[in-house]
Amino acid sequence: MYRAPVEDIAFTLKHVAGLKPALDAGTFGDLGEDLVDAILAEAGRFASEEVAPLHKIGDEHGAVLKDASVTTPPGWKELYRRWIEGGWNALSGPEEFGGQGLPTMLGVAALEMWNSAAMAFGIGPTLTMGAVEALDKHASEGLKAKYLTKLVSGEWMGTMNLTEPQAGSDLAALRSRAEPVGDGSYRIFGQKIFITYGEHDFTDNIVHLVLARLPDAPAGTRGISLFLVPKFFVNDDGSLGARNDVFCSGLEHKLGIHASPTCTIIYGDGFQGATPGAIGWLIGEENKGLACMFTMMNNARLAVGMQGVAVAETATQKAIAYANERRQGKASDYSGPGMAPIVHHPDVQRNLLTMRALTQIARSISYCCAHALDRARLGEGEAAANWRDRANLLTPLAKAFSTDVGVEVASLGVQVHGGMGFIEETGAAALYRDARIAPIYEGTNGIQAIDLVARKLPLGGGEHVHSYIGELKAVADAVRTSNIDGFGRTADNLDRALADLDEATRFLQKLTADGKADAAMAGATPYLRLFSLAAGGAYLAQGGLADRNRIALCRFFAENLLGETRALKERVIDGAESLAAAGKALISA
Amino acid sequence: MYRAPVEDIAFTLKHVAGLKPALDAGTFGDLGEDLVDAILAEAGRFASEEVAPLHKIGDEHGAVLKDASVTTPPGWKELYRRWIEGGWNALSGPEEFGGQGLPTMLGVAALEMWNSAAMAFGIGPTLTMGAVEALDKHASEGLKAKYLTKLVSGEWMGTMNLTEPQAGSDLAALRSRAEPVGDGSYRIFGQKIFITYGEHDFTDNIVHLVLARLPDAPAGTRGISLFLVPKFFVNDDGSLGARNDVFCSGLEHKLGIHASPTCTIIYGDGFQGATPGAIGWLIGEENKGLACMFTMMNNARLAVGMQGVAVAETATQKAIAYANERRQGKASDYSGPGMAPIVHHPDVQRNLLTMRALTQIARSISYCCAHALDRARLGEGEAAANWRDRANLLTPLAKAFSTDVGVEVASLGVQVHGGMGFIEETGAAALYRDARIAPIYEGTNGIQAIDLVARKLPLGGGEHVHSYIGELKAVADAVRTSNIDGFGRTADNLDRALADLDEATRFLQKLTADGKADAAMAGATPYLRLFSLAAGGAYLAQGGLADRNRIALCRFFAENLLGETRALKERVIDGAESLAAAGKALISA
Repeated sequence: MYRAPVEDIAFTLKHVAGLKPALDAGTFGDLGEDLVDAILAEAGRFASEEVAPLHKIGDEHGAVLKDASVTTPPGWKELYRRWIEGGWNALSGPEEFGGQGLPTMLGVAALEMWNSAAMAFGIGPTLTMGAVEALDKHASEGLKAKYLTKLVSGEWMGTMNLTEPQAGSDLAALRSRAEPVGDGSYRIFGQKIFITYGEHDFTDNIVHLVLARLPDAPAGTRGISLFLVPKFFVNDDGSLGARNDVFCSGLEHKLGIHASPTCTIIYGDGFQGATPGAIGWLIGEENKGLACMFTMMNNARLAVGMQGVAVAETATQKAIAYANERRQGKASDYSGPGMAPIVHHPDVQRNLLTMRALTQIARSISYCCAHALDRARLGEGEAAANWRDRANLLTPLAKAFSTDVGVEVASLGVQVHGGMGFIEETGAAALYRDARIAPIYEGTNGIQAIDLVARKLPLGGGEHVHSYIGELKAVADAVRTSNIDGFGRTADNLDRALADLDEATRFLQKLTADGKADAAMAGATPYLRLFSLAAGGAYLAQGGLADRNRIALCRFFAENLLGETRALKERVIDGAESLAAAGKALISA
Repeated sequence: MYRAPVEDIAFTLKHVAGLKPALDAGTFGDLGEDLVDAILAEAGRFASEEVAPLHKIGDEHGAVLKDASVTTPPGWKELYRRWIEGGWNALSGPEEFGGQGLPTMLGVAALEMWNSAAMAFGIGPTLTMGAVEALDKHASEGLKAKYLTKLVSGEWMGTMNLTEPQAGSDLAALRSRAEPVGDGSYRIFGQKIFITYGEHDFTDNIVHLVLARLPDAPAGTRGISLFLVPKFFVNDDGSLGARNDVFCSGLEHKLGIHASPTCTIIYGDGFQGATPGAIGWLIGEENKGLACMFTMMNNARLAVGMQGVAVAETATQKAIAYANERRQGKASDYSGPGMAPIVHHPDVQRNLLTMRALTQIARSISYCCAHALDRARLGEGEAAANWRDRANLLTPLAKAFSTDVGVEVASLGVQVHGGMGFIEETGAAALYRDARIAPIYEGTNGIQAIDLVARKLPLGGGEHVHSYIGELKAVADAVRTSNIDGFGRTADNLDRALADLDEATRFLQKLTADGKADAAMAGATPYLRLFSLAAGGAYLAQGGLADRNRIALCRFFAENLLGETRALKERVIDGAESLAAAGKALISA
């Protein structure tokens, strides 16, 4: 059973991701370390004691659709009520609408814990928070007044409706349409798929954010507008009115996160005899819907990254516990009675340490991304712009690397359990199933890698990434000058990895400058991993410098896993030509 | 839907794994290329047209237990009947008992196809073949006469009963016991778990091979004997007699291969009012049961390796087909109407080529292992011993690398499918679930790696592995002297990888010689992967030398994936100390 690693989370926030200096400098006003610790401890308690026990029942029952209504698994609705009553939905929401306005860093740390306890639970509120953000930034005052307070508290939940059967990664192909009614509202028609928590029984109302095209809108992504479409209309006194013409026509039968209803949503089909057309209201400007969605999507990407960290953490805990309990064979350093717990076998230790190191790295990158978001939000002028660039740079790493790690670590977790890992009752397999969606949704990891290369490397005239790499190099230098034996070859190996990163970065920047987009795209995925490993190595080292107990894991990583950067760099630099040559054979005649 | 890659399989058998020269030299008597091709084509037809269509129903229904009887999914029993009527169970069985005595290479190639079509189907007969082998080598003439013909034809199926709750990887802890009755038979008592096809409705009788301890047997692995325990007794005229005191008390609820019943089997509990004690007969000598099981286990390891190859092949086919069909976005080399098929995107091509190359490598290693088994069986004297060493050396690679590849490729396959990959109906997720058991059963991949380092590197006084590496180096030389441009950096990169392999091998051999077992074990898993990648690179090159159409994939692998060997070598050589240091923290107080 998951126990929230509150100490580890607090340490990473404070000493790796920059929360401690920020608190000391008053960046977060009068927020102090005591309150931070208290919030993390209580979130950890709630996640461990209230959410985690419902994971298995959620996985086994799943969400059920009947007559366009979705029933969540036994106990889940009540769990959600307790969770919003605890104020958790409002943690980092805007204060103007009842939110607590706490740092994104804290919101992200809490999010990790909900997802570790049950990923199918954690994903729902993530979308509400995205809707809050989009409305807060782009909606009219009237819409805000009507919807935001209840979305911030969690009394209602929000959804994001982007995907259509023909429009997934490429939203230019989107077809849903919106016709102006004449009174400021629109009638929406279309079918959306893969809508997470598109219908459920957690809340009385659901607020759908829907991308659709206005009549005569330009083709492609420049002709897409964003609409708010409530499940039930809201009267001026805040009470619920009639049912809107929007309904759930199907649930997907998924590999994992069974408790999370993944819905097909039909807009404007004359549901229950209604006049066809789901009534909605424009958010932001006409044809600027994608821009309105964009901030929200970026933050949702970090949130999905947290799912990767979260599943990896749970899988690691579970595997370490099992390895301490299960006994097989003899081990040189075990002299107790009977067979040795398998945690004594070096090969098992390798798996467990790999799991722990990758989890810690993914967590560090993600928290640093959250820190940058906070600083960008609270800062001013050039400093804020710089932090905004940093958040933008780290977002694809946080999303793609963390979710790849989620799958990798969950798979190792099954392996450590041996035959028991393949048995569903053990729970290791459920993590392996749940983890697999995170590299796919909110922009596939391939798209994250392309985003990193094509849109993030050019930030700050191409210089931002190098100033970041410079900061990482300073950590390697600090390790060297610390003269602490326990670091072993950490400084040298980190230098080498950062040199690989530097070289690959300049290579890709030049390709892009030279207009060789295909060759750059060919190297994007290995580059993203190279970047994440090198940055992660520096973060582990920073942790080791702040706490000697963390040096051993840092060294294990530096001497066992960091060496992969060399091959990744070669793949970036030397791989594209052979890829293009061999790739042709894949294309059907 | 799976289409057996008959041409690819035939090419690999003939031109990479040595079947062509062996046929030409008459190694397999009058077996000719025409017959080989005909058998492969017909196996491919049966797998594609008859087995594959039943995969989904098998996954969805699973095997069902009621009143100690197991019902397999609709159509599966009839499929099995058609399959044995086609003679497929007898393909490489001993001719003396009705088998066709064809090469193991062919048996293994066919096995790949059954498993590609439905892994839950392929695993059943694998165990029967193991039982055939154990009986053929070790059983008395009486037992052979009574059981072998029907096991060879597949009219009855066999099982392997090793695992008990406390005895998995470490069979020394085994507790099942056997008491001599006095008439040459024994009464067996005990509980076995994870027994694949331990009970089912495919056949009228099931022949269990069971490990148990005789009274006063020595402790540990030297006190284990092997027994034949039939589900129904067999009368002297071959007809079935009374029911034995053995029954299935439970089925596991598994992540994948749902159609394969994984049974808890109870021996000697007085089932249906019987006098307690399942009656069995000794196979081989008393207390030598593990040795009897050993050959069988080694071949079962290769068979499980084929499951990795098989699932990887199916996942690759499925992903390539989807990538040619699914359209999203634009691509520079696509000028057709509408959006480009995603197979045109370089990042998607990278995934697909990685899948294809890894699958091809795992197949090559596994077929080469089968070839060595054939040569060892058919050869004489020193040559045969050398081939036996080769098979022993390659077995852990074939098992562990191939099954790791199965998981890796199935996961990439889900990724290529995007959101559809997470939906069960698409079928990509089922492969990801099925694949996950293969790195675990028949000796976990960690144990394979330890077997490679501890027991296989010392073969031939430590020289066998170096003569093998020498053969691989000759392939790199042949690539260089071929002067074919298309190979790009293949020769250089292969040289480097083989030098890494050489260095890591000598390092581990020295550690073992110096008695530093823990440090050697710490490097075992990365060493096995290093070995497999280097060998696989050479096999791809060999294929490229024989067929120019295969050069592009070879080059892609050499320039994109082979570079990993450097980091793996470092992990082997430099990784153990930090692993030991960090590993201590994993052990609970």
